[in-house]
Amino acid sequence: MIEDVLVADPPADSVDAVRHRLRAFLDRHRPPTPCLVVDLPAVADRYRLLRRLFPAAVLHYAVKANPAPEVVGLLAALGASFDVAGVAEAELCLRAGAPADRLSYGNTVKKASDVVRAHALGVRVFTVDSEADLLNVAALAPGADVLCRVFAFPTAARSAFGRKFGCEPDLAAALLHRAHRLGLRARGVSFHVGTQQLDPRAWEHGIATAARIMATLAASGVHLTTLDLGGGLPAGYRDGAPPLADYATAIGESLDRHFGSAWPEVVLEPGRAVVADAGVLRTEVVLVSRKSYEDRHRWVYLDVGRHNGLTETEDEFITYALATARDGGPVGPVVLAGPTCDGDDVLYERNTYHLPLDLAPGDLVDVLATGAYTASCATVGFNGFPPLPTTHLGASGEPVR
Amino acid sequence: MIEDVLVADPPADSVDAVRHRLRAFLDRHRPPTPCLVVDLPAVADRYRLLRRLFPAAVLHYAVKANPAPEVVGLLAALGASFDVAGVAEAELCLRAGAPADRLSYGNTVKKASDVVRAHALGVRVFTVDSEADLLNVAALAPGADVLCRVFAFPTAARSAFGRKFGCEPDLAAALLHRAHRLGLRARGVSFHVGTQQLDPRAWEHGIATAARIMATLAASGVHLTTLDLGGGLPAGYRDGAPPLADYATAIGESLDRHFGSAWPEVVLEPGRAVVADAGVLRTEVVLVSRKSYEDRHRWVYLDVGRHNGLTETEDEFITYALATARDGGPVGPVVLAGPTCDGDDVLYERNTYHLPLDLAPGDLVDVLATGAYTASCATVGFNGFPPLPTTHLGASGEPVR
Repeated sequence: MIEDVLVADPPADSVDAVRHRLRAFLDRHRPPTPCLVVDLPAVADRYRLLRRLFPAAVLHYAVKANPAPEVVGLLAALGASFDVAGVAEAELCLRAGAPADRLSYGNTVKKASDVVRAHALGVRVFTVDSEADLLNVAALAPGADVLCRVFAFPTAARSAFGRKFGCEPDLAAALLHRAHRLGLRARGVSFHVGTQQLDPRAWEHGIATAARIMATLAASGVHLTTLDLGGGLPAGYRDGAPPLADYATAIGESLDRHFGSAWPEVVLEPGRAVVADAGVLRTEVVLVSRKSYEDRHRWVYLDVGRHNGLTETEDEFITYALATARDGGPVGPVVLAGPTCDGDDVLYERNTYHLPLDLAPGDLVDVLATGAYTASCATVGFNGFPPLPTTHLGASGEPVR
Repeated sequence: MIEDVLVADPPADSVDAVRHRLRAFLDRHRPPTPCLVVDLPAVADRYRLLRRLFPAAVLHYAVKANPAPEVVGLLAALGASFDVAGVAEAELCLRAGAPADRLSYGNTVKKASDVVRAHALGVRVFTVDSEADLLNVAALAPGADVLCRVFAFPTAARSAFGRKFGCEPDLAAALLHRAHRLGLRARGVSFHVGTQQLDPRAWEHGIATAARIMATLAASGVHLTTLDLGGGLPAGYRDGAPPLADYATAIGESLDRHFGSAWPEVVLEPGRAVVADAGVLRTEVVLVSRKSYEDRHRWVYLDVGRHNGLTETEDEFITYALATARDGGPVGPVVLAGPTCDGDDVLYERNTYHLPLDLAPGDLVDVLATGAYTASCATVGFNGFPPLPTTHLGASGEPVR
């Protein structure tokens, strides 16, 4: 199934070429909408691009971004490691062909039974950020490798990511010391700068913090080897993002600044940067209306919304690029909304989108760069709208299997 | 299965009695967490209570609030009508035993094919708020009854519900007039004051608006018969809500004020008011931690969060009441979060919750009044966390079927 994707190591297709291929497939087959199509060669391309840009890093694909077995299996075959959010994702990776020694349990929130099951599956790397979790790992996964997650922002600041994960640096240092004394392998420090991070220099504070923690521990004889820089690498949505090469440069400069020539082992956990640009979500216009005779805006309702695929439009966080068959003619401002009876199932109102003036019910609208955090976040069927069906294309441009 | 719930018309159990029964069931059976238990006699009680409080109204249960076949089947047997958000919900109601003439298609966003299918199923009442949808209904469901949804708030105001549904009053009047000319039965006006509405007088503006629209149409010979007051009746969460009797009083006063003794046929679309109080969601504490040595707050992580059942904690909109086995001892402030790797999967941070100081991983926490907008809003498995399993209890206090 994925062999044809793996045979070559071609120059990466441009994002536009991938979109063209996906939209051509949709035009040929006209599947019922809404539907997501993911291009597996594009996933492979993006993974290889990250390997080239970050040659010193171990890439742990963040499974949560797109846990489709086709995607995970492809990345396993390409040699990726995996960041898993729990036992279910670990089992998924193993079924898709990833060896257990390439899995890292990155969720710092685990039941004791989760640690037991992950350890039984062969998982040997756990991230913690609290004493209780550390003690579970020490007792139930004896001898495992442990990373401690630290806040990636100054204590006084509020990151967009919030404080749900991580802890203050002095607590992180104490936990790693404790891990060492408990017979675990105190392996390193992790942090996360927040998903779809648009500032390539955002890793600087976390790298500086990690370097201090590592120096502190080294001074007492505990030598950490690993720095996990988490996720955050962006995908290409409507409003763009700096090129990934800028991130490689900025992160490299920070590592040089704080570690000199003695870089630790570096781990990256890309998710959306691997899969988002490989997907196109085809939707249909359900209704175009105005709320009064004077309204400047049209309301455009699509058959996909926040509950059946576009979860990340919450608070208009991700502004997807759109494409229609009528592009090129005159456009006007619209409010975009989903199909459910939920008044909050509105995609874009603050961010003004402009769509063709002749857009009509039945027209197709493609939501671009939708390979990440879409199908896997759909509800079981809120308002009766089913989850998002997904098709995976192989190198032939046709569905795999 | 539901016969034993239907035999009697007992005095309604108190909310506390229902909670006690549900928690006793959970204590006896100790199912894996997270899990939702819904008490069907309590659903029947709440439905009967609304019938008593609103004797002049036709009750259309808002299926989206809890589309479990056990709940819908019970309400169908009790004689309820149903507000459906689409064809899938209409089919669900029919399978659960509701006759087609008790279904109303309340979603103003429909594909032409949805109108065709609903009409083929026997649905004869459609709500519209735009010309395009009205023309579809006229063409594809000829002769159907039509309601037009109007904004329930002054044009200048921004309702919490937003402007996704409804239209300005003069447009609504024109659409109803047009419906009449298209051979449809222009049946009435609908509006929605926003879910979990805490002000019993919130219906006043919409009722006044509807009365004006109905008078306008009557003056040109089109006699509307129906006023659909939508949803909005509250359930009992942590911070309480006025008694439902206050809503009956305030709505009755508004109807008297604007219609005198000639009330129209009144429709209500209760969802959460019927089912929320009938459910308890049992969860387990996964982790209790602090982010620094100085932290005043503990972080308490549950095995349920925004993605597997507690969707309505988005923006901390619904503040659920909690109960633990350790209640009664000293408590302290906590931040509550869910189990996924999503930094936004935080339940309550702005709203301070106080939980027992000795709360520990493995302890059970019951989230109360969780019968509405929980299991049906769970994701297909984001981060590997599966949808929320649900058990329905009959009059025996044990699972039905």
